[in-house]
Amino acid sequence: MSTNTSTTTVFKRRESEARSYCRGFDTVFTSAQGSEMTARDGQTYIDFLAGCSSLNYGHNDPDMKEALIAHLQADGIAHGLDMHTNTKADFLETFENVILRPRNMDHKVMFTGPTGANAVEAAMKIARKVTGRSNIVAFTNGFHGVTQGALAATGNGYHRGGAGLPLNNVTRLPFDGYMGQGTDTADYLEAMLNDPSSGLDAPAAILLETVQGEGGLNAARPEWVQRVARLAKEAGALLIIDDIQAGCGRTGTFFSFEEFGIDPDIVTMAKSVSGFGLPMALVLVKPEHDVMGPAEHNGTFRGNTHAFITARVAIEKFWSDNAFQDDIARRAKIVEKALQEIADMVPGSRLKGRSMMRGVDVGSGELAGDICARAFQNGLIVETSGPNDEVVKILAPLTTPDAQLEAGLSILKDAARDVIGTTKVAAE
Amino acid sequence: MSTNTSTTTVFKRRESEARSYCRGFDTVFTSAQGSEMTARDGQTYIDFLAGCSSLNYGHNDPDMKEALIAHLQADGIAHGLDMHTNTKADFLETFENVILRPRNMDHKVMFTGPTGANAVEAAMKIARKVTGRSNIVAFTNGFHGVTQGALAATGNGYHRGGAGLPLNNVTRLPFDGYMGQGTDTADYLEAMLNDPSSGLDAPAAILLETVQGEGGLNAARPEWVQRVARLAKEAGALLIIDDIQAGCGRTGTFFSFEEFGIDPDIVTMAKSVSGFGLPMALVLVKPEHDVMGPAEHNGTFRGNTHAFITARVAIEKFWSDNAFQDDIARRAKIVEKALQEIADMVPGSRLKGRSMMRGVDVGSGELAGDICARAFQNGLIVETSGPNDEVVKILAPLTTPDAQLEAGLSILKDAARDVIGTTKVAAE
Amino acid sequence: MSTNTSTTTVFKRRESEARSYCRGFDTVFTSAQGSEMTARDGQTYIDFLAGCSSLNYGHNDPDMKEALIAHLQADGIAHGLDMHTNTKADFLETFENVILRPRNMDHKVMFTGPTGANAVEAAMKIARKVTGRSNIVAFTNGFHGVTQGALAATGNGYHRGGAGLPLNNVTRLPFDGYMGQGTDTADYLEAMLNDPSSGLDAPAAILLETVQGEGGLNAARPEWVQRVARLAKEAGALLIIDDIQAGCGRTGTFFSFEEFGIDPDIVTMAKSVSGFGLPMALVLVKPEHDVMGPAEHNGTFRGNTHAFITARVAIEKFWSDNAFQDDIARRAKIVEKALQEIADMVPGSRLKGRSMMRGVDVGSGELAGDICARAFQNGLIVETSGPNDEVVKILAPLTTPDAQLEAGLSILKDAARDVIGTTKVAAE
Amino acid sequence: MSTNTSTTTVFKRRESEARSYCRGFDTVFTSAQGSEMTARDGQTYIDFLAGCSSLNYGHNDPDMKEALIAHLQADGIAHGLDMHTNTKADFLETFENVILRPRNMDHKVMFTGPTGANAVEAAMKIARKVTGRSNIVAFTNGFHGVTQGALAATGNGYHRGGAGLPLNNVTRLPFDGYMGQGTDTADYLEAMLNDPSSGLDAPAAILLETVQGEGGLNAARPEWVQRVARLAKEAGALLIIDDIQAGCGRTGTFFSFEEFGIDPDIVTMAKSVSGFGLPMALVLVKPEHDVMGPAEHNGTFRGNTHAFITARVAIEKFWSDNAFQDDIARRAKIVEKALQEIADMVPGSRLKGRSMMRGVDVGSGELAGDICARAFQNGLIVETSGPNDEVVKILAPLTTPDAQLEAGLSILKDAARDVIGTTKVAAE
Repeated sequence: MSTNTSTTTVFKRRESEARSYCRGFDTVFTSAQGSEMTARDGQTYIDFLAGCSSLNYGHNDPDMKEALIAHLQADGIAHGLDMHTNTKADFLETFENVILRPRNMDHKVMFTGPTGANAVEAAMKIARKVTGRSNIVAFTNGFHGVTQGALAATGNGYHRGGAGLPLNNVTRLPFDGYMGQGTDTADYLEAMLNDPSSGLDAPAAILLETVQGEGGLNAARPEWVQRVARLAKEAGALLIIDDIQAGCGRTGTFFSFEEFGIDPDIVTMAKSVSGFGLPMALVLVKPEHDVMGPAEHNGTFRGNTHAFITARVAIEKFWSDNAFQDDIARRAKIVEKALQEIADMVPGSRLKGRSMMRGVDVGSGELAGDICARAFQNGLIVETSGPNDEVVKILAPLTTPDAQLEAGLSILKDAARDVIGTTKVAAE
Repeated sequence: MSTNTSTTTVFKRRESEARSYCRGFDTVFTSAQGSEMTARDGQTYIDFLAGCSSLNYGHNDPDMKEALIAHLQADGIAHGLDMHTNTKADFLETFENVILRPRNMDHKVMFTGPTGANAVEAAMKIARKVTGRSNIVAFTNGFHGVTQGALAATGNGYHRGGAGLPLNNVTRLPFDGYMGQGTDTADYLEAMLNDPSSGLDAPAAILLETVQGEGGLNAARPEWVQRVARLAKEAGALLIIDDIQAGCGRTGTFFSFEEFGIDPDIVTMAKSVSGFGLPMALVLVKPEHDVMGPAEHNGTFRGNTHAFITARVAIEKFWSDNAFQDDIARRAKIVEKALQEIADMVPGSRLKGRSMMRGVDVGSGELAGDICARAFQNGLIVETSGPNDEVVKILAPLTTPDAQLEAGLSILKDAARDVIGTTKVAAE
Repeated sequence: MSTNTSTTTVFKRRESEARSYCRGFDTVFTSAQGSEMTARDGQTYIDFLAGCSSLNYGHNDPDMKEALIAHLQADGIAHGLDMHTNTKADFLETFENVILRPRNMDHKVMFTGPTGANAVEAAMKIARKVTGRSNIVAFTNGFHGVTQGALAATGNGYHRGGAGLPLNNVTRLPFDGYMGQGTDTADYLEAMLNDPSSGLDAPAAILLETVQGEGGLNAARPEWVQRVARLAKEAGALLIIDDIQAGCGRTGTFFSFEEFGIDPDIVTMAKSVSGFGLPMALVLVKPEHDVMGPAEHNGTFRGNTHAFITARVAIEKFWSDNAFQDDIARRAKIVEKALQEIADMVPGSRLKGRSMMRGVDVGSGELAGDICARAFQNGLIVETSGPNDEVVKILAPLTTPDAQLEAGLSILKDAARDVIGTTKVAAE
Repeated sequence: MSTNTSTTTVFKRRESEARSYCRGFDTVFTSAQGSEMTARDGQTYIDFLAGCSSLNYGHNDPDMKEALIAHLQADGIAHGLDMHTNTKADFLETFENVILRPRNMDHKVMFTGPTGANAVEAAMKIARKVTGRSNIVAFTNGFHGVTQGALAATGNGYHRGGAGLPLNNVTRLPFDGYMGQGTDTADYLEAMLNDPSSGLDAPAAILLETVQGEGGLNAARPEWVQRVARLAKEAGALLIIDDIQAGCGRTGTFFSFEEFGIDPDIVTMAKSVSGFGLPMALVLVKPEHDVMGPAEHNGTFRGNTHAFITARVAIEKFWSDNAFQDDIARRAKIVEKALQEIADMVPGSRLKGRSMMRGVDVGSGELAGDICARAFQNGLIVETSGPNDEVVKILAPLTTPDAQLEAGLSILKDAARDVIGTTKVAAE
């Protein structure tokens, strides 16, 4: 497969250098269905990136598509600011009945500007307003977005450097496992919180991902998250779970923390929440912390009406019973088995993440990058993550049929085998 | 017309208190076409708010709708991160040919997260990275969004208060006209820039709206904008025009500054850029300032594929020749005449804004609010703006047929007359 | 007079490049009495700099000296942290009886670390704690010190640049006269304070010098200061008068604002408050704002015991009756007359400041610097100030005998005449 | 001994509530010699606080006193801004010959405003200017002063709270021992520095006290300090040793780090540097980092001339040979033995600090406070430190004759015994 230089000229000529994924996947995509994308040249690709977990239900789900077309044909509202619409009402009722109520959650739903970063910004503002405190605890290798407030909570130095400003009002503490197996980093958090001279200003919130997607698929242990939740409560700080990448089924349940027995004050969601890949973000906030006044955190596109339609269909279709969860669990085992095979090829490598948010740390960004590049040549879209891009990360649609999942994993294993073979030859 | 309490229960029960427009326009909208919105109860409304200038071409433009349905039916990409897609290529080529080239602009196009605030955040980061400076000059009554970086540049105290943090790295200076007719505020800007002891840290950028939409439809004089542009250049600062509300034809031309003879380093766009009200935002940046590295400013929904389709159709349909501009100019006169009639009813009131971004400052937020409320009762959606909500603001779709425009203005005039009459009676 | 290169080697070799005044006055001083300093080579100089207004009572006042020697001989406390000492008690009683009570001031006295900057930092902290607000209004060309908090309030770009950080939480507004004669800058302050969308966050304090010493001897009009005081009160902001340079008689009365009829919430003092040039600083704060808890703002050298002794003597000697004030007034006229003669030599120049804090703006830093350099050659120590060092500034000891004052002024006039003559010749 | 209420009225009436030590030591001191202070009522006290280590050579050292009186009698310069004076030259030459040269240090000497906080502020500015970075690493329980820049580096929450502002641009990391014996906190520092996604912005400096005085006499292990020094160098960060409390012989050598084999880029000094308790502070900075321009960090009282005299005498008298160091070592053993006896009385208590900067952590602030209060009743001035004031801290003058040292320790042991006895009785 060759690079489509002729057809990508306009991007080079006119699009900003900030463009990124198109550099690694250098072709022009024209259509997609389920877990497969098709390029202009007819080449098809299995998609193990899934819009960075924005397409957990695959591309162009037929039911969502049908509902959206019907809405368009009926001149349904396309843009309604935050006015009442029937589509928003329907989404809210479905979300309440299918998602919140069965999980004993009575959070209010706040529609922010339709980006994850915007949801995080809103969550941080709420926590600061509720507590009257400015500091927020975030963790090593966390990723929460690149607008100024969210970026302060993001660990990645490359992104931080883009601010052109010191990023402040966030205290960085070590995530679970960051200091090796012998040290429980929650001990350090507890010591800092309880020592009046530690220099940790009383936090408005503790903000974390249960699985750090961009940070290298670091999965926190349930007991660590539970303890952090307890420490937050004791410290008068809100617990914010950023479930933007790990939520919507990616880790096996709708929320990534369902099996932990915690009760977050705030949950941020985006990516797959619209079901269809359309821009949408929301903040779930406990009623007692729902303190933003009318339009205090506003935004023209808060509440994307088209996304309400597809989001409602997604929830009805996939979360009304346990069938989908069971599917995810089964597929997660398939993925794990394949990744273990890759891990076995690379001395010192190890599996990362959990459920369908899995990867293998192959120890070097160069190796991981080579594997992904080779896989792309063979028809698989897959990406790296981690501080040094050292983790080959699989974010396949959760709906990927088993055969297609196996096919994609097979390409990946071959790519790993090829690259490692080449590397060894080169090294000899 | 009565409030639909029974049908809005779910919003009260489940949506955050941050919801806003739905409070003033308390009905449930179900469909919309052109300049008219229809509620669940069958009531229709002329829309003079137009998604806060996000629907400059009206609701559900048939050509855009048709193109989007065709795309959906063909399983076109719905979400593609920032990968190459044919729809993005088509948008870029159209934007280049129809918008940029005829205006002698060679700006690069950066797709940010699809909110205006995100575009502003990116613009501020670019300016800081280009110059190595942290300070940005923004103006009294400016509105640029509510994420932390953009919010620092926003003047509104209610929104600023939501941050729960001091908002810094922005120097506020007086907008054109802020100090009354006798004082050219550009004199003060110039003095501050040239005085090494003024306390104004050398700015990375000067950021402004040519017409301040939320700030009360304050329209800067061309010569003031030109002088600010010159001062920015002399100071080594980038000029950022925030054209999110004033762009896309709202002030008579595609960009609000076309007739000023200035050459902004960066332009931020959102709202009507997708044409259809879909979330989309972009930053135009001169090639020499296109310094953000790959994904340095990233975001999952940067580049909304559906929006690329409608945006391309909008540009082809409305901006390929001068017909639309001429229409806008004609309609602007109709609006101005009606607003002058309202102004004549209220002693001390005055017209604000320019072209189809017009309003009347009636001197009090209470009066302006009463007029809008009465208009809504009579089938017109219209809002206030300004520091004290004292401006009745008309942001009708630019495509509103003359008869419908006159009908809406007629409702507004009647509302003003009714409210003022009532007020006088009450005062007597 | 030649430079003493041989004797200044150790400074060049070992002292930091941050050293400053020694560069312009390049000799080694060994003793001083009254208004005269003597160098190692026997050369004497009339001192019109007076430790930047730290030696308002001249060098080595015999009464203060005698008291300090007696204290030393009796093994009086040299360092007592902030413990009770008889010397501190004596100072407090004298300050209360001679200074505060006759002026109807019931301010508490807070001893901070013995630098003006430290007093300003404390004042800013108090205002923020009292109001719960973070923002402080300071003015163009203000100078308040170079530690991080005080530096944020300082206008000078060279000093600000030394921070290596954005300096924040201060809003800069135009000082009286900054926008020319036609504009009362208090109008702008008032507009900003009353406009909820101005972008001016509600200030904790308004901080100003009534005469800006470093900023170019800009003397605010009494009515401007009065209005600012009123606006501060209305805005719930504390009024902080930084009287570090302008206080202790420099402007004719003990406090610079005595004749303005204002009642500042906080006054910062340093420089001449010890009388003898010893490090000492204090903050006067109204009892209702005395909110710093025990040691909340601490510092090892807060309360310099030796300085308490000389400060007490200074107050008793100079402020027990009106004789000293009358002397100052008479001398101020002598200074004014001489400066007017210099102003008459330089087209476009103008007098700055008031009372014994006077200077002449000669329009260029180069010219002002040449005049001071020539004066030094002829036995006069005098410095420049202002944004571009364009003001020849006289800060002679207030105790300078008339004959010596005339002698110094004579040297200065000659220097001006020489330099201007030379400049004219060079220009021809 | 009763409280002198009648004589302390003026303090209560007129001095700010910020006063502190006077509350615990509620008498009025009038004179002092060596290690003894005398109150107005004739009562004498052994001083184990020594101006918080500002009086390492005791009160009113006769040689320093004599030199200062001679200077006064000769009308030597009392205040000279930063002009050349013979006293400054003499100090610099002595400091160079006796302190710097024998230790192979070629640091430049920068005289800052005469407070430790000011020296720390200057050091932070230098590091930021040298590196172009804003972040500075400081440690849990560190204390560096309460002006805004220094306060950001200070851990104490009570002092931080006084800022009324978020304190930023400092990253807090765990000091040696903070995470218990099993964890070397330098591992965490190293991981943070080397992980591009850790969220630790590249630091301008690493700032530390080798023994944390206010933080509870935490003494870092030499190997930890050495490793931190190495990590700083590798990270391109300057190493700043804050030797304000631990320097000038307090830990057995002139600098606290002499025996560690490290070469700090910057050292901050204050407290005992003047020898006599007079306000003085300085920054030692390697020539290649001496980047502050003339007056870029200025201050009226930088370079206290009286302090130059006493400082020079102190250095000549105590540091010209090893006799004083040997004395310190011997006395440190006496102190250690006594503190061990106290530690033996309190289960779970432990010795803290090193050399003559020693204390005993008795496990509770209440107990430590009671011991100090009882000791004061019996004629000993001694204070607590630590996050919860749980450490009884001895900072006796280094010159205290052995008999007087034993006498003071005896009072302290009795106080401990009394208080513990009482506590036990109360508990029973």
